[in-house]
Amino acid sequence: MTVTSAELQVKGEAARRASRRLAALSTEIKNQALLNTAEALVAQQAQVLDANAADYAQARDAGLSEAMLDRMRLDEARIASIAADVRTIAGLPDPIGEVIEGRRLPNGLDLARVRVPLGVIGAIFESRPNVTIDISSLALKSGNAAILRGGKEAIRTNIALASLAQEAQAAAGVPAGALQLIEDTDRALVGELLAMKDTIDLLIPRGGAPLIEYVRDHAAMPVVAGGIGVCHTYVHRAADLEKALAVVDNAKRRRVSICNALDTVLVDRAIAGAFLPALGRRWAEAGVEMRCDPEAEAILRAAGLPATPAAPDDFGMEFLAPIAAVRVVESLDEALDHLERYGSGHSEAIVTEDYAAAERFLREVDAAALYVNASTQFTDGGQFGLGSEVGISTQKMHARGPMGLRELTSYKWIIRGTGQVRP
Amino acid sequence: MTVTSAELQVKGEAARRASRRLAALSTEIKNQALLNTAEALVAQQAQVLDANAADYAQARDAGLSEAMLDRMRLDEARIASIAADVRTIAGLPDPIGEVIEGRRLPNGLDLARVRVPLGVIGAIFESRPNVTIDISSLALKSGNAAILRGGKEAIRTNIALASLAQEAQAAAGVPAGALQLIEDTDRALVGELLAMKDTIDLLIPRGGAPLIEYVRDHAAMPVVAGGIGVCHTYVHRAADLEKALAVVDNAKRRRVSICNALDTVLVDRAIAGAFLPALGRRWAEAGVEMRCDPEAEAILRAAGLPATPAAPDDFGMEFLAPIAAVRVVESLDEALDHLERYGSGHSEAIVTEDYAAAERFLREVDAAALYVNASTQFTDGGQFGLGSEVGISTQKMHARGPMGLRELTSYKWIIRGTGQVRP
Repeated sequence: MTVTSAELQVKGEAARRASRRLAALSTEIKNQALLNTAEALVAQQAQVLDANAADYAQARDAGLSEAMLDRMRLDEARIASIAADVRTIAGLPDPIGEVIEGRRLPNGLDLARVRVPLGVIGAIFESRPNVTIDISSLALKSGNAAILRGGKEAIRTNIALASLAQEAQAAAGVPAGALQLIEDTDRALVGELLAMKDTIDLLIPRGGAPLIEYVRDHAAMPVVAGGIGVCHTYVHRAADLEKALAVVDNAKRRRVSICNALDTVLVDRAIAGAFLPALGRRWAEAGVEMRCDPEAEAILRAAGLPATPAAPDDFGMEFLAPIAAVRVVESLDEALDHLERYGSGHSEAIVTEDYAAAERFLREVDAAALYVNASTQFTDGGQFGLGSEVGISTQKMHARGPMGLRELTSYKWIIRGTGQVRP
Repeated sequence: MTVTSAELQVKGEAARRASRRLAALSTEIKNQALLNTAEALVAQQAQVLDANAADYAQARDAGLSEAMLDRMRLDEARIASIAADVRTIAGLPDPIGEVIEGRRLPNGLDLARVRVPLGVIGAIFESRPNVTIDISSLALKSGNAAILRGGKEAIRTNIALASLAQEAQAAAGVPAGALQLIEDTDRALVGELLAMKDTIDLLIPRGGAPLIEYVRDHAAMPVVAGGIGVCHTYVHRAADLEKALAVVDNAKRRRVSICNALDTVLVDRAIAGAFLPALGRRWAEAGVEMRCDPEAEAILRAAGLPATPAAPDDFGMEFLAPIAAVRVVESLDEALDHLERYGSGHSEAIVTEDYAAAERFLREVDAAALYVNASTQFTDGGQFGLGSEVGISTQKMHARGPMGLRELTSYKWIIRGTGQVRP
């Protein structure tokens, strides 16, 4: 597909040009631009909230779901939280120019592997307008230009946020073109954006599974796909059952609509009779539907608790809702087999007091984040100390798990000599 | 495309199964397997050389080019050199299990980013049978299974080398299936191999540009493409001309058929009248054809030296032959513009005694390896201290430049807790 949109062409070339200068931009200028952005977010929140109110009213009239409406809504508290994240990014070490390794070779050559930006980061996202600020801030701090394409439903909000950030960056001396928001919300532009492999070095889709799969299948440039998580927690026979109840409940219920939320609980047969009724009582009260294999269903019913029989594809399903699949397993081996078959490589947990079982789980499960005795909802760039994140990668190449600053970089080898030739 | 070859299916599944056990294999076993392989290469060289002689005779009768014949030929010295590389890999630190970073979070969670293998590495290569041992050795040390598909012309040699390595690995306790050589040389198998994205985590094509481009365009799994290098050396006005002559000559002539060989010399106008005749005399004697822009051509002719007018596409051409494009440039700026337009992101060099010019070149040129006052032919895993290499990446995602052990790994995040839930 060729690019016919003038907006894409002009903004793409501007981002490409800016990326050369961004690679050499000083840390001071980048940090000042971020602090300016945080300040402007608070000082100019009235304009942002007005734009958001207009988007919200139109989206509500158009009949968007409550979940979508909630995700796009900004208020003073959410803006303050976005501004705080931007200040956190300003406070993180600058990854660019880091000497990852270096040494003098026997022939006198000085060799260094030095961290550099990727170039131009593209992002395609839905509803949440905070992504505009999150990704543009992480891209700037890591020396990359950014081209953003947000959802139609939040276009006024995104324009308000992007222009505020562009002004804040310009005032600090960031080259023009570093941050580009595509304002044309025509769906055909997504296809054209996916073809711009000479302009965009890395594309990040943020949103539901259909968007992510579409981008992964059609993009001509590298994509970091993530955001789809089928997450398991395995309650081992040597679990502390109080810890297990707290961890499983938090992994499911803290927020149900995010990719690190629990989808399936695996319960060891040895403690299923003690654990499942306790979990069933908690979730019956909280309104979490339990889709059970026959053994789990029998235990819950015997305790007078509700249980739905699981359909075959409930295992391996990302629910994003107050629903969990439940299965009783014979052993750690059976749990590992289940994870290998149904896991999506995102976040998996074991609850156990058994050292050997915990270590085997950590060694053998192949996923971005593995937990012992903790909630999978910790998989998050902010929680991991990366400041923020552009997304959570479930692939193994380049970056895995939450992607912060360093995950938006590459490196080059620099060799300083005095006339050396190779024998 | 679906996989219809029984050999691909059976060997793919065996590699996948082996990869789970390889991820946890001890460094001792991996190193012993490599030492066994090095020993067997020397002890059983008669079988390998017999197989190679049969391949060679058939290839010569089939009319393969001298260059191809030279690349596929093994002798005692080459086998000794391959064995030495394997011993070097045995001596390198094991990358697997390395804690890349780790810390205790304020809530008491212990967070670690731990290096793990990618899983199954696929390689498709032509003629050079040493690739069989190079890639299988690097894959083993980095805990990966390997599926190799070598060229038809060296199939007997590859079978001899792979079975020798398989026996050496088995004797050390490496799980069966870790090393797979596809013996069916039907070309249709390449297409099927490229579709095996659930089996192969990373595919490495090694060979000429047509092979690499075909693999990059058709593979369903991630590919590290490299091996195509349009390499420049820029002789700056502040160059030491003796150093420049030695560096430029070595970059072109040490070996002309490899990807880090010089393709274009850029000469600063201020020193072109002094430098080009010296280079022209050296290359006239050595038989290197100089394809010149009008200004360089005039200087050479005025000195009574041969010069060919350059065609437009000589700039940006990878020659892999005793040919170089030559252009006179006004300044460092013009040289940087030339590199941005024609470079392939492989290896670029500047020859200068001017500190500021050198540092600007290192900062602004976007390529895998950048040199000051040294030959681009140093771009090589062995030279960089990586032991050996599976290839040289010219992309920015995942790995850039020579790919050794670490570049065949990913990581996972491990979080050890005591019942933490996220607020």
